[in-house]
Amino acid sequence: MRDPDLWRELGQQLRVDAVRASAEAGSGHPTSSMSAADLAAVLLAEHFRYDFDNPKSPANDRLVFSKGHASPLVYGLFRAAGALSDAEFMTYRQFGSRLEGHPTPRLPWVDVATGSLGQGLPLGLGMALAGKNLDRLPFRVWVICGDSEMAEGSMWEAAEHAAFYGLDNLTAIIDVNRLGQRGETMHGWDLSSYTDRLRAFGWHAIETDGHDVELIDAAYREAESAGKPTAVVAKTIKGKGYSKVEDQAGWHGKAVAEEAIEELGGIRNISVNVPRPAPAQRHRFDAPGTPEWPRYELGDKVATRKAYGEALAALGGDDPEVVALDGEVSNSTYAEIFRDAHPERYFEMYISEQQMAAAAVGIQVLGWKPFASTFAAFWSRAYDFVRMAAISRATLKLCGSHAGVSIGEDGPSQMALEDLAAFRAVNGSTVLYPCDGNQTAALVRAMGELEGISFLRTTRADTAVIYGAGEEFPVGGSKTIRFADDDDVTIVAAGITLHEALKAADALATEGISVRVIDCYSVKPIDAETLRALATPIVTAEDHWAEGGLGEAVLAALADLEEHPPVSILAVREMPHSGKPAELLAAAGIDADAIAAAARELVAARAPA
Amino acid sequence: MRDPDLWRELGQQLRVDAVRASAEAGSGHPTSSMSAADLAAVLLAEHFRYDFDNPKSPANDRLVFSKGHASPLVYGLFRAAGALSDAEFMTYRQFGSRLEGHPTPRLPWVDVATGSLGQGLPLGLGMALAGKNLDRLPFRVWVICGDSEMAEGSMWEAAEHAAFYGLDNLTAIIDVNRLGQRGETMHGWDLSSYTDRLRAFGWHAIETDGHDVELIDAAYREAESAGKPTAVVAKTIKGKGYSKVEDQAGWHGKAVAEEAIEELGGIRNISVNVPRPAPAQRHRFDAPGTPEWPRYELGDKVATRKAYGEALAALGGDDPEVVALDGEVSNSTYAEIFRDAHPERYFEMYISEQQMAAAAVGIQVLGWKPFASTFAAFWSRAYDFVRMAAISRATLKLCGSHAGVSIGEDGPSQMALEDLAAFRAVNGSTVLYPCDGNQTAALVRAMGELEGISFLRTTRADTAVIYGAGEEFPVGGSKTIRFADDDDVTIVAAGITLHEALKAADALATEGISVRVIDCYSVKPIDAETLRALATPIVTAEDHWAEGGLGEAVLAALADLEEHPPVSILAVREMPHSGKPAELLAAAGIDADAIAAAARELVAARAPA
Repeated sequence: MRDPDLWRELGQQLRVDAVRASAEAGSGHPTSSMSAADLAAVLLAEHFRYDFDNPKSPANDRLVFSKGHASPLVYGLFRAAGALSDAEFMTYRQFGSRLEGHPTPRLPWVDVATGSLGQGLPLGLGMALAGKNLDRLPFRVWVICGDSEMAEGSMWEAAEHAAFYGLDNLTAIIDVNRLGQRGETMHGWDLSSYTDRLRAFGWHAIETDGHDVELIDAAYREAESAGKPTAVVAKTIKGKGYSKVEDQAGWHGKAVAEEAIEELGGIRNISVNVPRPAPAQRHRFDAPGTPEWPRYELGDKVATRKAYGEALAALGGDDPEVVALDGEVSNSTYAEIFRDAHPERYFEMYISEQQMAAAAVGIQVLGWKPFASTFAAFWSRAYDFVRMAAISRATLKLCGSHAGVSIGEDGPSQMALEDLAAFRAVNGSTVLYPCDGNQTAALVRAMGELEGISFLRTTRADTAVIYGAGEEFPVGGSKTIRFADDDDVTIVAAGITLHEALKAADALATEGISVRVIDCYSVKPIDAETLRALATPIVTAEDHWAEGGLGEAVLAALADLEEHPPVSILAVREMPHSGKPAELLAAAGIDADAIAAAARELVAARAPA
Repeated sequence: MRDPDLWRELGQQLRVDAVRASAEAGSGHPTSSMSAADLAAVLLAEHFRYDFDNPKSPANDRLVFSKGHASPLVYGLFRAAGALSDAEFMTYRQFGSRLEGHPTPRLPWVDVATGSLGQGLPLGLGMALAGKNLDRLPFRVWVICGDSEMAEGSMWEAAEHAAFYGLDNLTAIIDVNRLGQRGETMHGWDLSSYTDRLRAFGWHAIETDGHDVELIDAAYREAESAGKPTAVVAKTIKGKGYSKVEDQAGWHGKAVAEEAIEELGGIRNISVNVPRPAPAQRHRFDAPGTPEWPRYELGDKVATRKAYGEALAALGGDDPEVVALDGEVSNSTYAEIFRDAHPERYFEMYISEQQMAAAAVGIQVLGWKPFASTFAAFWSRAYDFVRMAAISRATLKLCGSHAGVSIGEDGPSQMALEDLAAFRAVNGSTVLYPCDGNQTAALVRAMGELEGISFLRTTRADTAVIYGAGEEFPVGGSKTIRFADDDDVTIVAAGITLHEALKAADALATEGISVRVIDCYSVKPIDAETLRALATPIVTAEDHWAEGGLGEAVLAALADLEEHPPVSILAVREMPHSGKPAELLAAAGIDADAIAAAARELVAARAPA
């Protein structure tokens, strides 16, 4: 029942609502909503398949507002669909309201937070990838994009991957309203600049008038049957419908006068009966049976990155919802072991860490458990995506290999030295840093069940297996490996420095200094109870910059104690270079010798005069 | 004197040298060097204009190895140019050698560190932008790119900006050797997939055989006169010249047997006399005279972001080397004030923070002083570029506005809450966080002279002017605003929370609690001396996550004290939402009431029983 008159009226309603909500709030982006209102109206009224009573239904289409600042339009759609009352709709941007300045999953019909431009299309790509390859369901993913955000490289990472993976279930609707926040975009209304680029990337691209509802409908129909990822590139007018602001610069992110409502024909209360998709169940992969969980023998050597790959492959055998992604370094992170064991649940994301992070977020929207890996240093490329994933309330499992100076000859560009600081500063995150193979395997298993964003830091070098295969490593715990009743000093370490700490303890023992050694494999949450009970001076040692890493995490655990022992933080403080791992650990002052020296100094300072 | 035989021989020499150096090191990327050897040979022998004795000459062409792992090829070029002795050449990857695993500016002929893929082209773009618009010199920028890294969106940000800014002085040489680290790229040897995309982005693009030196030469000539940014897209063979590894997967990042040298025709010692460019001086902008330095009156209100823009415009009047860039939010960061005052030294980078950071790094290579700004939250988008900029020894001045929950209604996607942690964990960085207009202006002036990477965090809201216009704020210092001899408690704050701290101190004073208030505007380096002298309990308050921010910086300054007072860290600990700034500061527990409550608790705990 195509009804262009309804579509037009609905477009006007969405405009009026954008004006009303932002006028009431005194802020917001009505003009950015008004440009896309007809595009959104035709989508909701004619093409979108969604059960608003069951937003998690696997059969639902998915809608992502990549231009998240058009939130009044998002909420106006939910009101038009009968999902939001007018009273709640008018709470836009108020403290306590679910209707935030930019959409977040506090509303059940929002899958992912947007508002950092250039992320919605990569996120939608993750959903489309899941739909086609994991869920194996015919739902479509619709992404409404701004024209300004096409300047973000992440949009082109998505363009590349959509074509490569043949995602004909993905439609990008590009609202070319010509005006960014502070003026004209690079391409203004030159629609061909977008369509030419997208076609070169392998998309089907349609130019249209974004205010002609019949042309919009035709474009969506074409997208639905194009057999390729398709972009509907629509010429629109920012502020469309309110003549005073139409196509004017200087109206971005500003409420407009309520007189606009009159020009738009007044308040409407159209309710759209959005068709529900036919019920469907997502594909379920067979679990190949009891997995061979990796076990490493005490005294053997194995790199924790290798143990990650082996454990992940085992976890994938145990849990058919586990999925893995890697950024073209699977032979270094050892994600390739999972790939070879479970090829249908592995996605090669090539060298595009932003898209990898976004794809993982999109995949977990559909209920899968993505693990994504690259060098820990290169997670810095996707930091904004991880930040936003926390706002999206996403459950992601991330692994970063090749941590710290201990990687050796490849030099500082490949050394993660800021990853602990960066991941600690992600809301609700878990940060794990194992030192041996069995511990790694146990933590990978734990990550499978963790909520929120968890990060596992692995090491390039083979390291000694110091724990038995059955040992448990609760998240938030620690292991006190060496201790005596009369400890003189405590060394807190994790990962590669834990092995240096043990060597230091051995050396100090020969001098009569009794050392407690704590393996702080759970950097966040940290085992505050154990740390706060310490009475001796503390040396912390980490293969990471001094700022924001293990040392500061230990300090934070102790901060409010009325009295606490001195803490000497050993960390990397000068730019490392190439060299052998042992040379670099020594140069950074985080090897056994440096740890022993720092411990000796603390003990001497406490010695009776 | 075109000499194709020489070019061929030089190509073989570069291959042999890549094999020799990496065989000696036992690691490295010879096969990735061998594919690009002919491309590099023709460039060095015939097209590159460079004075190796004067690498900082403004007339020099610039060469960036975006595929930084081909470092044996980079160093082989320097050897062939007579800049490196064979003895030093053979120290590749050894501890202490300038010849690191990936190129860094420890070598004077390397302008920028590479090794995080997808950065070299954006960095080269910055140099080309400077060459054309600031230096106004005819040097060319040559960037040798890998095919794998074309999957990074940042490469397409560069493609977009190169065309937009008409950078016909930029040539990208794309070494399409088909093989990435773990297997084939998305496009293999389909050269048209690259040329089609680049042409759609507005480039001139040439497909060629990357092992036919005469075709390579012709392509470079075409690039030199194309009048557009030009890509030479060359089909090459990974490991070319050593039949055992040619076009084989599994040989990325591995040394190959020295038997390859024989097949390549043995060691050569060709020395290329690289032509020097004609001497030239870069353009000098007129400083418009004594700048009007902004002055704010005590008791007035001004947003620190506004003061940033006004101070930067003044600094630009004072110092003709100051340049500004912004990521399409100049009306929010107030970089627009600089743009309007000094339009020739302002670059609009649209919404592409990675490219903005890289452009700033490229621009500072040529001796300019770039200030770049966006919302502090969106600097997380460019974190890998900032990380690498530190390895490049770059001097960058970055400003992030709209810090923290105090931005209000726009919600968490726009709130920087991890920026202090992220920027503290950058090697050699300076992190500044002013609370008023005059302090901001003084810190902007200080940034103009700082080496390394400095970051200024500004606030959206208008805040009271509490310092006089003449006051000094040394980097590494602090201001003790309130104090008495018998202080009961100290509050350490910065930026927006400093104002809350003052309100808390006022409230506590009425209860007879005497409060010291320290403005820690220099978060890194922090004023450790002042903090270590404190005898009272400490409350820290910050509009930032608890991890890695001001509180932990304070803890780190106190860590090794034999005794230190308890520290109560007030910071954002739960995901904020939309609301009014005051509501959000209260909800996060970082407003005056929360600070006063924490101070009261610390004082009570110390009270005699």
